[in-house]
Amino acid sequence: MTILLTNDDGIDSPGLAAARRALAQLGEVKVVAPLSARSCTGKSITIGRALRVVEARTLDGAPAQAVDGTPADAVMIALNALLKRRPRLLASGINLGSNIGLDDVLDSGTLGAAFEAAMRGIPSIAASYCMDGREPVEEDLREAGEVLRRVAEFVLKEGMPKGVDVISINVPQGFKLGSSPLRLTRISTKPRRSPYVRVEGGYAIKSWSLDLYPMDGEDTDVGAVKRGSLSITPISLKLPARRRGCEELLKALQA
Amino acid sequence: MTILLTNDDGIDSPGLAAARRALAQLGEVKVVAPLSARSCTGKSITIGRALRVVEARTLDGAPAQAVDGTPADAVMIALNALLKRRPRLLASGINLGSNIGLDDVLDSGTLGAAFEAAMRGIPSIAASYCMDGREPVEEDLREAGEVLRRVAEFVLKEGMPKGVDVISINVPQGFKLGSSPLRLTRISTKPRRSPYVRVEGGYAIKSWSLDLYPMDGEDTDVGAVKRGSLSITPISLKLPARRRGCEELLKALQA
Repeated sequence: MTILLTNDDGIDSPGLAAARRALAQLGEVKVVAPLSARSCTGKSITIGRALRVVEARTLDGAPAQAVDGTPADAVMIALNALLKRRPRLLASGINLGSNIGLDDVLDSGTLGAAFEAAMRGIPSIAASYCMDGREPVEEDLREAGEVLRRVAEFVLKEGMPKGVDVISINVPQGFKLGSSPLRLTRISTKPRRSPYVRVEGGYAIKSWSLDLYPMDGEDTDVGAVKRGSLSITPISLKLPARRRGCEELLKALQA
Repeated sequence: MTILLTNDDGIDSPGLAAARRALAQLGEVKVVAPLSARSCTGKSITIGRALRVVEARTLDGAPAQAVDGTPADAVMIALNALLKRRPRLLASGINLGSNIGLDDVLDSGTLGAAFEAAMRGIPSIAASYCMDGREPVEEDLREAGEVLRRVAEFVLKEGMPKGVDVISINVPQGFKLGSSPLRLTRISTKPRRSPYVRVEGGYAIKSWSLDLYPMDGEDTDVGAVKRGSLSITPISLKLPARRRGCEELLKALQA
């Protein structure tokens, strides 16, 4: 039984190492992750150049392979060429930062990797640690790893809940399993405040904090995390089409 | 009345010029597009460096602004800093290549720009020309421009159909308004075949063709385009959460 593990912070992230240690209790973990940090690249893939695959190690010395592309590149090359068997599960993370609200969910390389695998029918879990700009706390990462391990164990045993393709976990700072609150959530669709600021020479994203996300209901990922709850978001990977009401549009084209 | 126009093939694309010419019949068109080609970057944004904005021109000489980032960067910087007024509409394209199936829709910079604006409540249209690897045909681009113009005119007059955030148009090669078939479609969720091939030094995406997409029903974007129909896909921008059936998962975490 193989679990494929990737992330978007790159092969040297302490979040990746924490995820690997936690998942190794469940089976063989194959780590195939981006060579360098590729945050905010969504499900994007690389065109126009060859992608190298190099033997590497995680921060704590476990064997791994690194791809000099995006998280989705890493997943696809792992599935097509690097793994001997189709993995039972894809885990992505632990991301050093939250992934909440639809803006983030569509920008996030952590989620992008999960979407890439889920498109191919592989149960996928994205794990994010809402550390909000500061350095990661070792104990928080261990706790987030334990949450990831329990969700992975559940999915390996019971399968994904019906209609769910990706489970996105956001673990708040200072979270303690057994005492901190947990929430099943949906993705907030309130737009994130713009992270761009005017700088010398143009515009840049200087910092990132929970203040960017307008407060939303407790049943949303944003609302849960802002209130200090662990957020578990079961995602169905589809963009609904609303064809009803569009007949007039078709007529305007046929006129 | 301002229309914001962007793309993912970059400021020098003939598709961008064709879109601008067509939309200029409807009102003021502000062009803010990536400085260089940024295909397959989805809704990703750029972190870690400043983004320059430079005065530029489209291929046919119209004034424009170019951002050395992704399509979503261009949209956000346009909305926050470059436009005097909130645009009535965002148009993205005309992309030199199809954007069909959920894999592509989540990878596409053309769609990514439309999602970025739609998140902020701006009616958004993505236009793609399914030219399938060859050079663009001037007449096809003109026809695609006319389709885009008619859809934009409809949306400006009638508003977006209820529950629709983005309209994605895929125009097949050789399409003729008035004689070629048209279809209202949903997004195919069948996974694209892997575009990566083994090359000297690693893996690369060497070519792209409609063969990558497994045939699907005529009511899908893939099925319509593969059968030579124009595909109009009305998209609701949300990833549905399926919380029902996940209570057991929560219990496993609380144990």
